[in-house]
Amino acid sequence: MSFLELTKKRYSVRKYKDKPVEKEKILQVLEAARNAPSACNYQPWHFIVLNDEIIKTKVAETYPKDWFKKAPVVIVACGDHSVSWKRADGKDHCDVDLAIAIDHMTLAAADLGLGTCWICAFDAKSCHEILELPENLEVIALLPLGYPDDETIPDKKRKSLDEIVTWK
Amino acid sequence: MSFLELTKKRYSVRKYKDKPVEKEKILQVLEAARNAPSACNYQPWHFIVLNDEIIKTKVAETYPKDWFKKAPVVIVACGDHSVSWKRADGKDHCDVDLAIAIDHMTLAAADLGLGTCWICAFDAKSCHEILELPENLEVIALLPLGYPDDETIPDKKRKSLDEIVTWK
Repeated sequence: MSFLELTKKRYSVRKYKDKPVEKEKILQVLEAARNAPSACNYQPWHFIVLNDEIIKTKVAETYPKDWFKKAPVVIVACGDHSVSWKRADGKDHCDVDLAIAIDHMTLAAADLGLGTCWICAFDAKSCHEILELPENLEVIALLPLGYPDDETIPDKKRKSLDEIVTWK
Repeated sequence: MSFLELTKKRYSVRKYKDKPVEKEKILQVLEAARNAPSACNYQPWHFIVLNDEIIKTKVAETYPKDWFKKAPVVIVACGDHSVSWKRADGKDHCDVDLAIAIDHMTLAAADLGLGTCWICAFDAKSCHEILELPENLEVIALLPLGYPDDETIPDKKRKSLDEIVTWK
């Protein structure tokens, strides 16, 4: 499969099979994040893999959707602001670096027949408290992971290239 | 090639062959960005493809490295803050969304035998002025694109999985 095909295959999966994800596959997804580039190669990331039902249920309170509660695995992607690179004008590249690593995980998962969904609209403050994280860590996204219940790949609704590209 | 292999194949290419990049390949790289997910599917991105030597030289003043000046193509990746999704607590997801799209471009390029390099340490204010961009657009990264002069893929220096992952 070409990479372009993989970008079409990846979509937001909001219903998972009641089937555990093999540890070997979780490790491959994390390995894809580990290989991600980051500003100055500072790798300002930490990933918390939630398998345990009790902690998963607590974290799900920060994004209270039934389908999310039922995801077999949730990866909590944290950015470390004490490590991330800051440009001379003060711009912090933590969000950029974490997004690259998370993107790698979503694509690795799709390549392995797994589904994910970027969750950004969660209660970040509560999530930070529930996981008792230190001040320097920010939860950038929650990433549920599991086998898609339905394997139909929906069409993507995207702007046209003409709308998003200028040639100079 | 598996996606995991592709993440190993992609690296920061800082020397390009003196050979133009076919328009068809540039379009495929842009198509990978177009397919990227974004918060609420708002797609807050705009890409300016620089082929012209005069404008490329001007933009290169904002990141004055000889190798960068010689890149056959530069894609200027802009985030549109008037379009990007903001969470209830005010967090703007522009950086996250742009990083996903740019990551897609770097991976698509590697898949096509092309090289790229994330440039974040440029003078963003000058770049904005040179390109006469409106206030709502922020240049998030400059992405040189070309055929790698040397095809040796360097080993990645990365933290171990144990250092970056916690299991709960």
